[in-house]
Amino acid sequence: MAGSRFAYVRDFELPDPALPDVYLVVRIDGKGFHKFSAAHNFAKPNDAAALELMNCAARQVCSELRGDVVMAFGESDEYSFLLKKDCQLYRRRKTKITTHIVSLFTSSYVFSWPSYFPQTRLLQPPSFDGRLVEYPTAKHIRDYFAWRQADTHVNNLYNTTFWACVLRGGVTEREAHERLRGTVSAQKNEMLFSEFGINYEREEAMFRKGTTLVWTQEEANETTTQPAEDVHDGLVSSPKGSQQNKRKVKMKRRLRTLHVDIIGDAFWLEGTAALPATAEAAPAVSGSCAAAAASDTTLPTSMPSAAPWQDPDRLEGVGCGRWALA
Amino acid sequence: MAGSRFAYVRDFELPDPALPDVYLVVRIDGKGFHKFSAAHNFAKPNDAAALELMNCAARQVCSELRGDVVMAFGESDEYSFLLKKDCQLYRRRKTKITTHIVSLFTSSYVFSWPSYFPQTRLLQPPSFDGRLVEYPTAKHIRDYFAWRQADTHVNNLYNTTFWACVLRGGVTEREAHERLRGTVSAQKNEMLFSEFGINYEREEAMFRKGTTLVWTQEEANETTTQPAEDVHDGLVSSPKGSQQNKRKVKMKRRLRTLHVDIIGDAFWLEGTAALPATAEAAPAVSGSCAAAAASDTTLPTSMPSAAPWQDPDRLEGVGCGRWALA
Amino acid sequence: MAGSRFAYVRDFELPDPALPDVYLVVRIDGKGFHKFSAAHNFAKPNDAAALELMNCAARQVCSELRGDVVMAFGESDEYSFLLKKDCQLYRRRKTKITTHIVSLFTSSYVFSWPSYFPQTRLLQPPSFDGRLVEYPTAKHIRDYFAWRQADTHVNNLYNTTFWACVLRGGVTEREAHERLRGTVSAQKNEMLFSEFGINYEREEAMFRKGTTLVWTQEEANETTTQPAEDVHDGLVSSPKGSQQNKRKVKMKRRLRTLHVDIIGDAFWLEGTAALPATAEAAPAVSGSCAAAAASDTTLPTSMPSAAPWQDPDRLEGVGCGRWALA
Amino acid sequence: MAGSRFAYVRDFELPDPALPDVYLVVRIDGKGFHKFSAAHNFAKPNDAAALELMNCAARQVCSELRGDVVMAFGESDEYSFLLKKDCQLYRRRKTKITTHIVSLFTSSYVFSWPSYFPQTRLLQPPSFDGRLVEYPTAKHIRDYFAWRQADTHVNNLYNTTFWACVLRGGVTEREAHERLRGTVSAQKNEMLFSEFGINYEREEAMFRKGTTLVWTQEEANETTTQPAEDVHDGLVSSPKGSQQNKRKVKMKRRLRTLHVDIIGDAFWLEGTAALPATAEAAPAVSGSCAAAAASDTTLPTSMPSAAPWQDPDRLEGVGCGRWALA
Repeated sequence: MAGSRFAYVRDFELPDPALPDVYLVVRIDGKGFHKFSAAHNFAKPNDAAALELMNCAARQVCSELRGDVVMAFGESDEYSFLLKKDCQLYRRRKTKITTHIVSLFTSSYVFSWPSYFPQTRLLQPPSFDGRLVEYPTAKHIRDYFAWRQADTHVNNLYNTTFWACVLRGGVTEREAHERLRGTVSAQKNEMLFSEFGINYEREEAMFRKGTTLVWTQEEANETTTQPAEDVHDGLVSSPKGSQQNKRKVKMKRRLRTLHVDIIGDAFWLEGTAALPATAEAAPAVSGSCAAAAASDTTLPTSMPSAAPWQDPDRLEGVGCGRWALA
Repeated sequence: MAGSRFAYVRDFELPDPALPDVYLVVRIDGKGFHKFSAAHNFAKPNDAAALELMNCAARQVCSELRGDVVMAFGESDEYSFLLKKDCQLYRRRKTKITTHIVSLFTSSYVFSWPSYFPQTRLLQPPSFDGRLVEYPTAKHIRDYFAWRQADTHVNNLYNTTFWACVLRGGVTEREAHERLRGTVSAQKNEMLFSEFGINYEREEAMFRKGTTLVWTQEEANETTTQPAEDVHDGLVSSPKGSQQNKRKVKMKRRLRTLHVDIIGDAFWLEGTAALPATAEAAPAVSGSCAAAAASDTTLPTSMPSAAPWQDPDRLEGVGCGRWALA
Repeated sequence: MAGSRFAYVRDFELPDPALPDVYLVVRIDGKGFHKFSAAHNFAKPNDAAALELMNCAARQVCSELRGDVVMAFGESDEYSFLLKKDCQLYRRRKTKITTHIVSLFTSSYVFSWPSYFPQTRLLQPPSFDGRLVEYPTAKHIRDYFAWRQADTHVNNLYNTTFWACVLRGGVTEREAHERLRGTVSAQKNEMLFSEFGINYEREEAMFRKGTTLVWTQEEANETTTQPAEDVHDGLVSSPKGSQQNKRKVKMKRRLRTLHVDIIGDAFWLEGTAALPATAEAAPAVSGSCAAAAASDTTLPTSMPSAAPWQDPDRLEGVGCGRWALA
Repeated sequence: MAGSRFAYVRDFELPDPALPDVYLVVRIDGKGFHKFSAAHNFAKPNDAAALELMNCAARQVCSELRGDVVMAFGESDEYSFLLKKDCQLYRRRKTKITTHIVSLFTSSYVFSWPSYFPQTRLLQPPSFDGRLVEYPTAKHIRDYFAWRQADTHVNNLYNTTFWACVLRGGVTEREAHERLRGTVSAQKNEMLFSEFGINYEREEAMFRKGTTLVWTQEEANETTTQPAEDVHDGLVSSPKGSQQNKRKVKMKRRLRTLHVDIIGDAFWLEGTAALPATAEAAPAVSGSCAAAAASDTTLPTSMPSAAPWQDPDRLEGVGCGRWALA
């Protein structure tokens, strides 16, 4: 063949498999998003539409890689994706997994931009970099997500106070940095409340807690109007849970979008309140990209009206993490 | 700090530096582009607009990473980027480099889609995966690009004959595969010519040779109307090349888009015909994304009229590769 | 400095840290030991002195790296060393750890040869290669050692039967292979018993079970004559185990040499019979290299008389593995 | 099979191939040799017998891996081995290559100790660690060896001066360090000469230049009494070098032991004086381990009488390096 004498160059492509049976986390970060945010006039300290666009792109990744990506967490211009321990995607080749997730996220971000910023033209193609990290046990994964959410809290409290000082307090950015230097959380909370009348705990949960995406399993409700996910048969305990009461029910997987605490145990442990009740209390779609989650071919063309991040369905996540570490 | 007891999870991020002083090649590949092409009705065997969109996205990568990416080669839904041996981008961290290139390429592809397909709505976000390969010497790099271009030739001759049989010969795809099984190049050339009146050598060079992007250096011509690249001072030999004749001239770097042979020596070796003459013969811009190459902020909003791949400037590349392996 | 313009070559030494918080196993294998065994007339199917020499070299590794190497298992010409999860040896650099263990084992093997083969001159320097494997959880470690011990069983049953056929049955090696092809364990056991009067279960435990080295903790007995290991203070439950009964006792670490089952649970779980009783029943030293284990400077100069592998202390290991996975 | 349910643990053994077509250097270092030297009363600043033992062990490695290891360089308690670019040993698995070399070196060191220290009992098994480094080009390899030899020079000049101060000058080690702090080479040379009558350039070449082992090719001399290496047929240029003068001669590979400059060009470039003349001028064996180099089974049982490092054959190496980078 024409190229056969050159084909030896393929031998330089070395293997890079992940260790078997460890959790994989792919974290992506926006490149130069300080400048990108400024160029597109993102609101300070948080731009809800920009965060929703991140969430939408992440939901697209979760849907495309359902069965492999079991959970995700995002804040600001970063998103972390958890792949299950026995994930066999690309035979666990690390670079393949990482680049595919980075590419799909980026692609979805640009693709969905007009839905979230109908009035703002995208001025330049944004870019994200990514890394893949291996974690041996569920304990590490909980600590990983706790690390990211603690970071969200620290950053958001700082930024909220900082921009309150600048935008409402009328000081320069430099002066605001000076004031905040060395302050602890309690001082920032107090400053927000006494000077600007802001009760930090009442700020949007999406800003304070970041966004958690997680695949849950629910009994399929024949009469539900919810967008159904992978509906599959399964042996599940009845609500009474006794061994004899096992019966065959339709289960559906659903990609939840949550703004809840994932540091404490409640999110991770099995809880009675977890599912059907919540679903009934929240007949709205679980995420603004629910269509994306439901289908590979239909994608959202506009951000849902109102503020999806205030949807009660997003604010109740007890027990939702229990499938992620299964 | 709130998150400090979790911060140990960072220690699981292991280093992945590339070996110093070796060439790096990042190759990206479309994910499921067979389906993607069909969904968007790409022309068979080659869709020139789709290839130009690939070229545009690749030019964006070359421009964004100018100084590091010195050459690129694309065919079909793949593109290879060559980073110079002493590239220090991200301190040579392999995953960072790879994901950034993959993300930027993907982003630009989606971003520029409307310019190349004004009549066709993008139906879903495309995705690319990537890999990074280390090559010790210039010899390996020449062989790498030869491997890809030989592959282009083999694939395109096959596809051209295959689709001629199907689209003009009226046979089924299965029958076409049967006919072509085991044929050598000469037989396919003959089949094309005798049955369909196609002289393969007169097919578009972009289809037969793929697309090579390469940064060249030219003397800045004060009166030129060409989009100037990084203009810088440099000591260059005069045309006569004698040691005494060195003089200070303005040099500009220019990103050339070429559809030429890169297997033979002519592309790689210094040649007198290389530059200013060509430039004068081709007053048109060197690529449809020239603006992208020229500026970080302005991006093309439409594909240049006509067929940029027939631009004479793209068909003459003698000596253009000599800076890539410097 | 004289060498400074060359010092850049150090930059080619790339990092190779192990993942944090995973178990590390270094397994070494003899190079060309078939030939080596033949050259030194090792007994077939097992040479007890040769195995004891392997054990001695492994004990030297365990002693030298006490605190890091917590367990080891050997059979034939291979040995596996388990390093604890939080091992910080060489900052977890994989090649450093592996080469140091391989080198120390090799060195001890040659060094102690005359003690185990006083009548046989070592004809050539033997060599071992090594590899390092990362395992995420204790479950994997138990399965790893089960894998090696199951391998010991399979190989030894085969070899025992094979050499019985050859040495006692008078068939050629080729014929013996033929007879054994496709036989299962029960058939080999039967063949051994009916044809050669060998009850496989009464073969030496060292041959059937391999050798397990493990650091245990025992209450220091002031009147003991045992070679004491690292004696340290610790809070341990009293035999009655109640929370209130905790008292401060002297604990000593002791490197046990065992030929026991490590596939089942008994070895790994806490058991009452584990320690002091056994120790009293076995006033002899726990291993022929006990001196090596006890001291960095004194090394054995001769193999203990008799057959140390029959020492009752080596045949009782209930609960001994529980510290290895702590 | 008994162990089949555990065999999955093998999947955790990940591949670690070296890049193709790059030079590999394995460097080994003594572990705790400061203490080891003191325990065995090595002479200060250099113990010639200890260095010869290192050289002997290294020759054993070169001989065992002939065809793969083409050159080595040692000083103090370290040795570097160069493997040729197209080495296929262990299919280029890095850990296998490194551990085998480390193990073989260690084994030979202990094995040959009595030959070099007939009066001194080895008190404890020494250990070496190792690392493997990839280098893309011959230029890097020359710089690597230059780096090590420059290091030899710097260290030896310091140590020679230091111990002259201590052993002859009667100062304490602390005082000697003080005196030498901040001095440059010229000052140390002057100090040696003026205070102790030592002309540094007349110190043993082995101390000043380290030891280089290199496989050379020589015309086999039918009447030679030299220990012949791999004698093979080859087409070689006659001394006149003309194309027509090619004739078939017997070539033999010979492992040279040299104490010569390897920083300059002379060692690496083809030179007329290189070989046969030298060989005739030095009818003695080329190294004290020549037997080791000549045979896999016979090993030296005593260090050659006299001082092999003064053998003229070891002090003339023009052109000897030219085969190492072929």
